[in-house]
Amino acid sequence: MNESLFLFDAPPVSYAIGEGALTYSRKILEPFNEAVILVDENTEKHCLQVFRENLPSLKVKGVIIINSGEENKKLEQAIHIWNEMTRLQVHRDSLLINLGGGVVSDIGGFAASTFKRGIQFINYPTTLLGMVDAAIGGETGIDFSDLKNQVGLFSDPHAVIIDPVFLTTLEDKHWQSGFAEVLKYGLILDRELWRMMYGMHFRQISDWNKIIIKAAKDKIDIVRSDNLEKGIRKNLNFGHTVGHAIESRFLKSGKPITHGKAIAAGMICETWLSSKVFALECTRLEEIVKMIDINFKRLDIDESAIPELLELMSHDKKIRGGKLRFSLLRKLGKAVHDVEVDPELVRKSIQFYVDQKKCD
Amino acid sequence: MNESLFLFDAPPVSYAIGEGALTYSRKILEPFNEAVILVDENTEKHCLQVFRENLPSLKVKGVIIINSGEENKKLEQAIHIWNEMTRLQVHRDSLLINLGGGVVSDIGGFAASTFKRGIQFINYPTTLLGMVDAAIGGETGIDFSDLKNQVGLFSDPHAVIIDPVFLTTLEDKHWQSGFAEVLKYGLILDRELWRMMYGMHFRQISDWNKIIIKAAKDKIDIVRSDNLEKGIRKNLNFGHTVGHAIESRFLKSGKPITHGKAIAAGMICETWLSSKVFALECTRLEEIVKMIDINFKRLDIDESAIPELLELMSHDKKIRGGKLRFSLLRKLGKAVHDVEVDPELVRKSIQFYVDQKKCD
Repeated sequence: MNESLFLFDAPPVSYAIGEGALTYSRKILEPFNEAVILVDENTEKHCLQVFRENLPSLKVKGVIIINSGEENKKLEQAIHIWNEMTRLQVHRDSLLINLGGGVVSDIGGFAASTFKRGIQFINYPTTLLGMVDAAIGGETGIDFSDLKNQVGLFSDPHAVIIDPVFLTTLEDKHWQSGFAEVLKYGLILDRELWRMMYGMHFRQISDWNKIIIKAAKDKIDIVRSDNLEKGIRKNLNFGHTVGHAIESRFLKSGKPITHGKAIAAGMICETWLSSKVFALECTRLEEIVKMIDINFKRLDIDESAIPELLELMSHDKKIRGGKLRFSLLRKLGKAVHDVEVDPELVRKSIQFYVDQKKCD
Repeated sequence: MNESLFLFDAPPVSYAIGEGALTYSRKILEPFNEAVILVDENTEKHCLQVFRENLPSLKVKGVIIINSGEENKKLEQAIHIWNEMTRLQVHRDSLLINLGGGVVSDIGGFAASTFKRGIQFINYPTTLLGMVDAAIGGETGIDFSDLKNQVGLFSDPHAVIIDPVFLTTLEDKHWQSGFAEVLKYGLILDRELWRMMYGMHFRQISDWNKIIIKAAKDKIDIVRSDNLEKGIRKNLNFGHTVGHAIESRFLKSGKPITHGKAIAAGMICETWLSSKVFALECTRLEEIVKMIDINFKRLDIDESAIPELLELMSHDKKIRGGKLRFSLLRKLGKAVHDVEVDPELVRKSIQFYVDQKKCD
């Protein structure tokens, strides 16, 4: 097998990751009589033609367009897809192709899994975030009532086809957003990946194919060992408990930020929490914070926002029995889930971020 | 075991069916810290108190009320439930109790299965239709764009608790509606059940506990052997291809009819189709039509409605590869699925219903 293309069959999901995956996917599409393609305005412009040219024999029944952006990951867009699929007379044996970033695969996966009690879908992620995270694992859904992924379900795609060819037109802010998740894999389970990137700004990285395969494999390994987020999969939430609250707050205030920026901030807070709960060394805390700061400017959050952020966390699905639970770092490359943390310590972790301290 | 209470553990679902099931369910509820109860305005009035009195130790976090009626099986009501569950801070380990008929368990099951990527729910059906059909099998969903169950998913309840105690306050039209499905089980797989009821108006039946247990077991057997409606479960669609189209048409015209009335009419059409496709005998056709006519007045459908009904069927999820497929009777008590039928023959079957012929 070509080292630059990683193929993996993990029923019910088939994966093809790396250069050439798009062309390879012809085999996977063969059994389907017809497909509908879901795009956003960006992927319609930059990716749809490449997709069609590489898969000329696919019978496309229609193209459905939604609006890009996390602020548009809303029920209204799922309704639009249901309406369009109804109009196109999509049947149970039709296929939905999600050609886009996390918003497209999240909403598209949700709409497909709930259309006529479920039709199959395939994710072709076109952003770094989609490739290393959103397209893998069957987490579909929408934001609702200002809460992230409040409505959705676990539903596996038929296949995930990850081809870096789509990244050539990706904007910087989207590279950055996906990079937060790549850093996360390094921190929670892959020291080698962390070492490959350490000290670099993401624009300095050259061998993205290798990094994407490595990061995507990390995510596949985790979701395969824990399909319904009962255990180890929760480690993926590192940075996300605080991060989601930050993301929700910016979304509510009408100034949405990328998922990656929110998670980068969340990882700084939760690395600090790790240093308090697990005695992660001060030098390690500094190393991690430094790497995040190289790649992410600090967000405009001040002390007065902390109570609202804590309130938002109380809605988080990671709560059990009313207590705040975190996935934290026991050490670099090793996360632990279901760690109960006192709300006062959480408050201090955001204060640490606001004050831009190094170690305390 | 008490013959009037049937207990059956079929992971992931537990069933308790018959007199005493409500009280028995205490054991099933024990592991849950808290629950939210979903009712409609009827079950709030007639069933909620009985429920609470029999299960005094259940910690109820809140009661959510929706509007009854198939015409209200809509997205708006699912949104209402998501909003209420958000307000009540329902978490992933909370339980939703669906206390009501098919509309409550369909919408409630859908809302629960899509809330925070899925919380558990238990169905306590309070109507005959719910007890013998809707509450069993994990078919959740809503009507959308005037199409029945266009949005929804397969999601198993944690348990189904069927206690006839709730039927004491059931209106006649709801008895009738459920009775259509009971007749269906007789026709498609249970001659003994058919014989127990044959010739009677549903109001003449005395031993409902026995009939409910028998019919509910029939449905459980089918859904267990075919969880995702790939094969034998399709037999349950007998009467429903034409029936759903009829139901949709009345719904669209602003004069909704009960599911049972629509399915009763659909079963007459599809029994006629069976007589043409499988040479079901003329006397058998007459016997079946007679029994349905004893219990269901003919609907106000005339010839001019037939094209619209055929168009509605073309949206039906039971279509594969663009052809109309039916579940039909090979003989009394034996259905066959995926029978392709010429649209012209379908037209004639509705004509047979409209003309009120006996046999032709």
